[in-house]
Amino acid sequence: MKLVTDRTTISKIVKQHRQNHESIGFVPTMGYLHEGHLALVEKAKEQNDIVIMSIFVNPTQFGPNEDFDSYPRDLAHDQRLAEAAGVDYIFAPSVEEMYPNKMNNQITVVERAGVLCGRSRPGHFDGVVTILLKLFSLIMPERAYFGKKDAQQIAVIDGLVQDFFLPIQIIAVETNRELDGLAKSSRNVFLSDSERVEAKELYKSLTKAKTAINSGEKSKKRIIEMVIDHLQLNTSGEIDYVEIYSYPSLKALDVIEGKVIIAIAVKFSKARLIDNLILDVR
Amino acid sequence: MKLVTDRTTISKIVKQHRQNHESIGFVPTMGYLHEGHLALVEKAKEQNDIVIMSIFVNPTQFGPNEDFDSYPRDLAHDQRLAEAAGVDYIFAPSVEEMYPNKMNNQITVVERAGVLCGRSRPGHFDGVVTILLKLFSLIMPERAYFGKKDAQQIAVIDGLVQDFFLPIQIIAVETNRELDGLAKSSRNVFLSDSERVEAKELYKSLTKAKTAINSGEKSKKRIIEMVIDHLQLNTSGEIDYVEIYSYPSLKALDVIEGKVIIAIAVKFSKARLIDNLILDVR
Repeated sequence: MKLVTDRTTISKIVKQHRQNHESIGFVPTMGYLHEGHLALVEKAKEQNDIVIMSIFVNPTQFGPNEDFDSYPRDLAHDQRLAEAAGVDYIFAPSVEEMYPNKMNNQITVVERAGVLCGRSRPGHFDGVVTILLKLFSLIMPERAYFGKKDAQQIAVIDGLVQDFFLPIQIIAVETNRELDGLAKSSRNVFLSDSERVEAKELYKSLTKAKTAINSGEKSKKRIIEMVIDHLQLNTSGEIDYVEIYSYPSLKALDVIEGKVIIAIAVKFSKARLIDNLILDVR
Repeated sequence: MKLVTDRTTISKIVKQHRQNHESIGFVPTMGYLHEGHLALVEKAKEQNDIVIMSIFVNPTQFGPNEDFDSYPRDLAHDQRLAEAAGVDYIFAPSVEEMYPNKMNNQITVVERAGVLCGRSRPGHFDGVVTILLKLFSLIMPERAYFGKKDAQQIAVIDGLVQDFFLPIQIIAVETNRELDGLAKSSRNVFLSDSERVEAKELYKSLTKAKTAINSGEKSKKRIIEMVIDHLQLNTSGEIDYVEIYSYPSLKALDVIEGKVIIAIAVKFSKARLIDNLILDVR
């Protein structure tokens, strides 16, 4: 495995592989790898000749009071995990390498971004699509891999690919979970011991909602109340949102029908966790 | 020469040529071709294996009171000229083909767009970069060709390529002029006979400014006054702007020094004409 930190080198590598007609699978990450990321790599290896992983904590997708500075970083550890998983290249540029000049253009996500994390984190998805456009230009992958834990992110990226006819297939991979159901996330390290025990209740509240829906409950209002009650009773976290929308269009609905997402975000003392379930309700 | 009107077909064609390691030169146009466009094709043929020209009057770069509906169109004539010039493919999609859905993302040009045509035509360059990102994704050219008559457009596109690391070389081609100096433009057909005679004065006013600068005049204010005087005395048109900036950064300056652009726009009864000179002043 090769570690690359500059644009010129990664472009040359990509060009060479393209000339050899080798397909490129791309796994964009912010590093501090866990099994969730490695599941993306596994899928990318199945479907492509070459796997490139980017490790870049992108400043433009963090708000002024968010955790950009404290976001966990461990490149040496990441390199070992990525190499063991079969990644061919890690692209880990500096902030200056990805933002060498003041931007001349600004992208604003105007659909699918005004709800859920987009509402709690204004400008977050603008930063996500900005860095992805840059990375896609450099890596020119056939396929790019994202985890379903960030379901809204996948919907936004799907909108980006649609808008600009990007010649890239977006592959959504199932959320990787701990044995007790907690969705794997780099931010889980910030949970205290007692919060870690409570954190499993996020997924429990979602499966409870799923059971109720499968038993015939179609009222958005009642399902949301049920999830909120469960979280309040079983965790010390502050609920950021519990919402239900159509997916991937993320439009409002009253009756739970068709493809829907139940999404939650809970703030613990040092970590804000998100989780979701996507259901096809007939 | 082949005429293509849908995204799927042009993508297949592009993919085939890329697999054959053939380089693609791209000439984006709004059609109603004249020698200015053909000079772009000539350059593209020199430098690439394959030349693709797009013909698309892009609605998103026209303001609500601009000439989108009346912009001249003649695809049959364009096909004959393009074929004679050696274009390999014309891509002439419908508006629905390029904007199949409401856009999820909005691009705003925040640098280099607040002056000159960008000030007179708010949103114009936002539309230009939007359609170019779409076309670049479909055509995936090694090089794209633009005329220096649209000098601000070239500066804005240069900013787009910088921001997103687009793997495309932007080639700026000299403005093609009539014998009397009028810059060739599809909009020239809208000039009345007497306006056509006056229209040569745009370029004359620019060369007069150039002579004065070469003779030692460094005051922006005095050069602008000289150009305005010349245009008012010699044309019936309404001056939209006469401005001087650094190029390509388009920053304000008082003293004419370094690489600068003198740019003018004049409104005649049915046509708004632009022209410019870029000078390297030591």
